[in-house]
Amino acid sequence: MQPSGVITITTDFGHKGPFVGVMKGVIVSRFRDARIIDLTHDIPAQWPPEAGFWVRRSYRYFPPGSVHLAIVDPGVGTERDILIVEYDHHYFMAPDNGLLGRMLDYADGAAVFKLDLGALERLGIPTPSNTFHGRDVFAPIAAELAAGNTTPVSIASATDTWIPAWVEEPEISAGKVSGSIITVDAFGNLISNIEGAMIQDLDTPVVHVAGHAIPLRMTYGNVKPGEYLALVNSFDVVEVARAESSAAQGLGVERGAPVTVTNA
Amino acid sequence: MQPSGVITITTDFGHKGPFVGVMKGVIVSRFRDARIIDLTHDIPAQWPPEAGFWVRRSYRYFPPGSVHLAIVDPGVGTERDILIVEYDHHYFMAPDNGLLGRMLDYADGAAVFKLDLGALERLGIPTPSNTFHGRDVFAPIAAELAAGNTTPVSIASATDTWIPAWVEEPEISAGKVSGSIITVDAFGNLISNIEGAMIQDLDTPVVHVAGHAIPLRMTYGNVKPGEYLALVNSFDVVEVARAESSAAQGLGVERGAPVTVTNA
Amino acid sequence: MQPSGVITITTDFGHKGPFVGVMKGVIVSRFRDARIIDLTHDIPAQWPPEAGFWVRRSYRYFPPGSVHLAIVDPGVGTERDILIVEYDHHYFMAPDNGLLGRMLDYADGAAVFKLDLGALERLGIPTPSNTFHGRDVFAPIAAELAAGNTTPVSIASATDTWIPAWVEEPEISAGKVSGSIITVDAFGNLISNIEGAMIQDLDTPVVHVAGHAIPLRMTYGNVKPGEYLALVNSFDVVEVARAESSAAQGLGVERGAPVTVTNA
Repeated sequence: MQPSGVITITTDFGHKGPFVGVMKGVIVSRFRDARIIDLTHDIPAQWPPEAGFWVRRSYRYFPPGSVHLAIVDPGVGTERDILIVEYDHHYFMAPDNGLLGRMLDYADGAAVFKLDLGALERLGIPTPSNTFHGRDVFAPIAAELAAGNTTPVSIASATDTWIPAWVEEPEISAGKVSGSIITVDAFGNLISNIEGAMIQDLDTPVVHVAGHAIPLRMTYGNVKPGEYLALVNSFDVVEVARAESSAAQGLGVERGAPVTVTNA
Repeated sequence: MQPSGVITITTDFGHKGPFVGVMKGVIVSRFRDARIIDLTHDIPAQWPPEAGFWVRRSYRYFPPGSVHLAIVDPGVGTERDILIVEYDHHYFMAPDNGLLGRMLDYADGAAVFKLDLGALERLGIPTPSNTFHGRDVFAPIAAELAAGNTTPVSIASATDTWIPAWVEEPEISAGKVSGSIITVDAFGNLISNIEGAMIQDLDTPVVHVAGHAIPLRMTYGNVKPGEYLALVNSFDVVEVARAESSAAQGLGVERGAPVTVTNA
Repeated sequence: MQPSGVITITTDFGHKGPFVGVMKGVIVSRFRDARIIDLTHDIPAQWPPEAGFWVRRSYRYFPPGSVHLAIVDPGVGTERDILIVEYDHHYFMAPDNGLLGRMLDYADGAAVFKLDLGALERLGIPTPSNTFHGRDVFAPIAAELAAGNTTPVSIASATDTWIPAWVEEPEISAGKVSGSIITVDAFGNLISNIEGAMIQDLDTPVVHVAGHAIPLRMTYGNVKPGEYLALVNSFDVVEVARAESSAAQGLGVERGAPVTVTNA
């Protein structure tokens, strides 16, 4: 794979403190021309599923040969492994804690590796701290991969086992799809794990959440301000929105809430 | 116009989710050397006036030939147009919803265009989603403009009509200027739309907000901690501050509040 | 010193408004290839000690020859000086208000300068505003330093006096070290100013905060979810955490709280 030089970073580190900044410092210290792009640092603390959801649905908007770091890592410093995945002309790197589990379920042709910690020394990477592998392991390895100085097979061992995803896939039965709200965006839109293809057999889809039945529309402007609507959003999953307002506040719904789609 | 390669981005997307990140991915996929700078992503949801206020007052600090994207877009996916403006050696791109209205009121020599959606296909841009034109329309067009691969006249139609600004201009009468608070910054400083030139005929300006009369000073350090002061700030508009504290909290004032300046 | 072209920025400006963005615009207008990295912009308003704490503990993760801007500046526009420091193959620039005080206490071989405002004109920098020296002074000077177009000695006067740090150093006595919580991160971890070396003579360190006695561990995964632990963190200071939860919320502790370490 020809590296693009692009590295994306997804974490639950938030914006207080220098945590993401020093990761970037480590990267540019090793690879001056790295092109680093923040995906988000507002993943809920210690909640890998949302990080995996967004990485899986976002990577294709980056150039082939990009490296995607996702660090939500409650097990840092324990015996948990670090996965490096080569899939669809992109690299992915994350703790082996389920974060990448859903993507790997569908990743035909993916090559999955577990990082060999001995490789750190071979690459001249100092012994890592016990508590900040983002800075001490992920950042320098990502820099070397993005620079084309190493490859997964040189620093990691092929594997076919990994921790599975934490959140169930939607359940699909005749005339009904049951899933859950994975995340809420800054507008208060409720974003589910039900994909467009899962509801394509429903003639007139209606989305049920928090006791409301909400018809499927094409875009936010299709209803009056304050009205609820559902749509298959730009990441190809069912979303519940409230025009020019917050569906999350209006419905009192948060991440994890059940959502179903039926035929009207 | 000679492009600088710089693209600024202003949105109401916040920091949750990968929305700004994937826009950057689309940009670098088309223009590897784009220099992307976030202006702010904390515009209040669906409130174009603040985005227009900051873009208008910030663009001159970027190199000539920069492209300024501003996306606060409640009408995404409906029939609303997208404006491309060439003015003062900069490009501006925003939904035609009033966001750029105030700047255009004063933009002598501006060339204003409405994007021809047919141009997307000519530039090899995939059919956009209905709900995320930031990623699917603004980002790729900005990349092509910033790279010098296209020009407004090649992809858009000249126009002399657009949606006007949502917020009234200040009213100026003998000895009195009446405006409004446009935004509150992270310190709680209240930032108005009253410009320095509007009050230059007042010998001893006093700013009135929320029942307080506050004298105009040169800088924050000119009063004791906890005291209120007003000043013409570094963006040349009247601002009400509280030394080492928050004027917004202290006065109980938010965006939209009326503010007047009189002579003492 | 050979500049690396890297500039880090640490402020209390938050993310509302274009304040950090226009600083970057000024930098790239003068030095197109500057590599700008945000350290954090969420320093508590007007609280220099936290900015100094993080800059001091983060700079070494950036390439030698980097320029570190730290702007927490309640005295902007008054007679306060601006420090430029050359230390350990890095440049630092901050208001002379104690921000860099603690670093300078331990900075053997540091060269400390006060900016000569007359240098602005020599470098073609416009007369600064009274209220935004980040944009008008720090950004252009940082650009010129990072580009190698100037040096501290050319634009500033050597000095051996500066405002000292605001927060006391920890007090070390036989079997006891008393310090304070400097900051709380996004996870609610309480980060103190007690360094690893200060407690190395304690055989079995126990950390006392808010009436709790918390044993020192190696990493977060060493206790069960919900339990408190203390550790010497990846920036080499004592930290109190709660596994998969927030120690700050659980203990009701904030920045400034006293913390002591004793022998069990």
